[in-house]
Amino acid sequence: MLRAIQKSVRPALARSYTTKLAQPTAVRIVEVGPRDGLQNEPTILPAATKIELINALSETGLRTIEVTSFVSAKWVPQMGDNSEVLRGINKVPGISYPVLTPNLKGFEAAIAAGAEEVAVFGAASESFTKKNVNCSIEESLARFQDVMDAAKKAQVKVRGYVSTVVGCPYEGKIKPSAVVRVVDKLLEMGCYEISLGDTIGVGTPGSFTEMLREVTRIAPVNMLAVHCHDTYGQALPNILTSLDFGIAVVDASISGLGGCPYARGASGNAATEDVVYMLHGLGIETGIDLPRLVNVGKFISEKLGRQSESKVNRAMRKTKC
Amino acid sequence: MLRAIQKSVRPALARSYTTKLAQPTAVRIVEVGPRDGLQNEPTILPAATKIELINALSETGLRTIEVTSFVSAKWVPQMGDNSEVLRGINKVPGISYPVLTPNLKGFEAAIAAGAEEVAVFGAASESFTKKNVNCSIEESLARFQDVMDAAKKAQVKVRGYVSTVVGCPYEGKIKPSAVVRVVDKLLEMGCYEISLGDTIGVGTPGSFTEMLREVTRIAPVNMLAVHCHDTYGQALPNILTSLDFGIAVVDASISGLGGCPYARGASGNAATEDVVYMLHGLGIETGIDLPRLVNVGKFISEKLGRQSESKVNRAMRKTKC
Repeated sequence: MLRAIQKSVRPALARSYTTKLAQPTAVRIVEVGPRDGLQNEPTILPAATKIELINALSETGLRTIEVTSFVSAKWVPQMGDNSEVLRGINKVPGISYPVLTPNLKGFEAAIAAGAEEVAVFGAASESFTKKNVNCSIEESLARFQDVMDAAKKAQVKVRGYVSTVVGCPYEGKIKPSAVVRVVDKLLEMGCYEISLGDTIGVGTPGSFTEMLREVTRIAPVNMLAVHCHDTYGQALPNILTSLDFGIAVVDASISGLGGCPYARGASGNAATEDVVYMLHGLGIETGIDLPRLVNVGKFISEKLGRQSESKVNRAMRKTKC
Repeated sequence: MLRAIQKSVRPALARSYTTKLAQPTAVRIVEVGPRDGLQNEPTILPAATKIELINALSETGLRTIEVTSFVSAKWVPQMGDNSEVLRGINKVPGISYPVLTPNLKGFEAAIAAGAEEVAVFGAASESFTKKNVNCSIEESLARFQDVMDAAKKAQVKVRGYVSTVVGCPYEGKIKPSAVVRVVDKLLEMGCYEISLGDTIGVGTPGSFTEMLREVTRIAPVNMLAVHCHDTYGQALPNILTSLDFGIAVVDASISGLGGCPYARGASGNAATEDVVYMLHGLGIETGIDLPRLVNVGKFISEKLGRQSESKVNRAMRKTKC
């Protein structure tokens, strides 16, 4: 009798049947650990270790590895060895090794050290831009024009980052329209791909849906990537939401580099191992050998003297003990 | 020109517009920290601390708090004070305080201590059942019949857990059909709700989708809950996937109790704070006061002498410093 009642309220078919169709069948991971990760670690590693890390990452199946940042060593001492690292790595054919170049000086140094792809870094928040580079968003983008012109001349691809796409430490919630404006401008300037960054990791599938709904109206989904931080544990759900929009490029950081496990409010990037585990579980190809990736995560976590921030890394190594 | 090309490949509207419609507008969290969490912590807390924890949880807006387990103290010493704890808490009207009762003896002890709701625990894996209770799934379910009969007589609601719904430590992948069989049987026996547990946290939105697609064919979605462990960092994406199926009851554990941060392969439950943060970000009501919940997580983490396993907890407390 109870069962009869139960069966009568059985729901209609869930909408997940349609969901899966929109997800990409393959995802390219942009490994940002050596740059965005190490840049935010308190420990400064020697160039030789960074080179060893990047060479090991090149053996995992990754196709894009962000190597370093050509910024002033005065501001970012962790990246002071940028030329040495970029020159020192084994460049495997088929793998791209972009570097961050915030201005023409950085771009020229990067090219001199052999860079074949660069990235510029904008933000969707006026206050964040003001605090970081002491100008308006409009002015900050105009400053990239030199880099864009030089890159075009040198036939170097430029990736554009947009940070604070859903939340800002100074302004709080960021309107999707603010993100749309910056994305549109960076595409107009010639960036081949835009990485949408939840810099402080406050986003949820709710704010990501709102933001992506607007951004995918003006930008082709195959020119978009997402860059999620795990400050509030939402990186994977936000990436899952992005996949549902058809986004097929995901930034991630080996073993969640960039978040210190001993600091309260650790704010590292999504851990590459965890992202790859989820993608493979969804039947989405990445070309990445997960056990090999886990070994690289182990290597770099040991070099930093801490445990891996990747749950997959910890779980997979435990089962091997 | 580039922009013209870009605009021509603009994708069709993403399917997320339909997604949101299927998600529930409100979710009931079943707080399992005092039972499933503390049961798996190496530290055994005094009953007074457990009572303090449960009373504090009762002030957060939670409507269901699993209090303890009426199992033999020989097997689960952490729950040896079950009667004392159940008798000692302040029972707030409108809040349910279920307890686990694996057999008639446990059920009778629970009722004697004032239980008004109980739970039984089955599994979808034959090997897991064999190793745990030394019988087949069929036999294990038959053993619950005494509890079900006694509960019916006492007019006590029974919740059914099904563990290893997507993966088993002994068998690996579990077929959705195996889950369907157990869910069907437990509903048939009179359970008012079935909690689908990814006991070892190996699931992904891929395996959850496969499993839920089959289970929602035979069970009303409003009688289903999910119970996710975060061993591989997939708890939140798996919960998000479940919401998309219309599931509106989610088990979670305050500050991720049940996973030891110092052990490799920590395998705690989804942290309640992180689940609530995601739900609120999706505009889904829980009735829970998140800052108050964070304070309870801080309290219990300190009692256990470790940091909270909830990223939201760590992030929210940092911003308050």
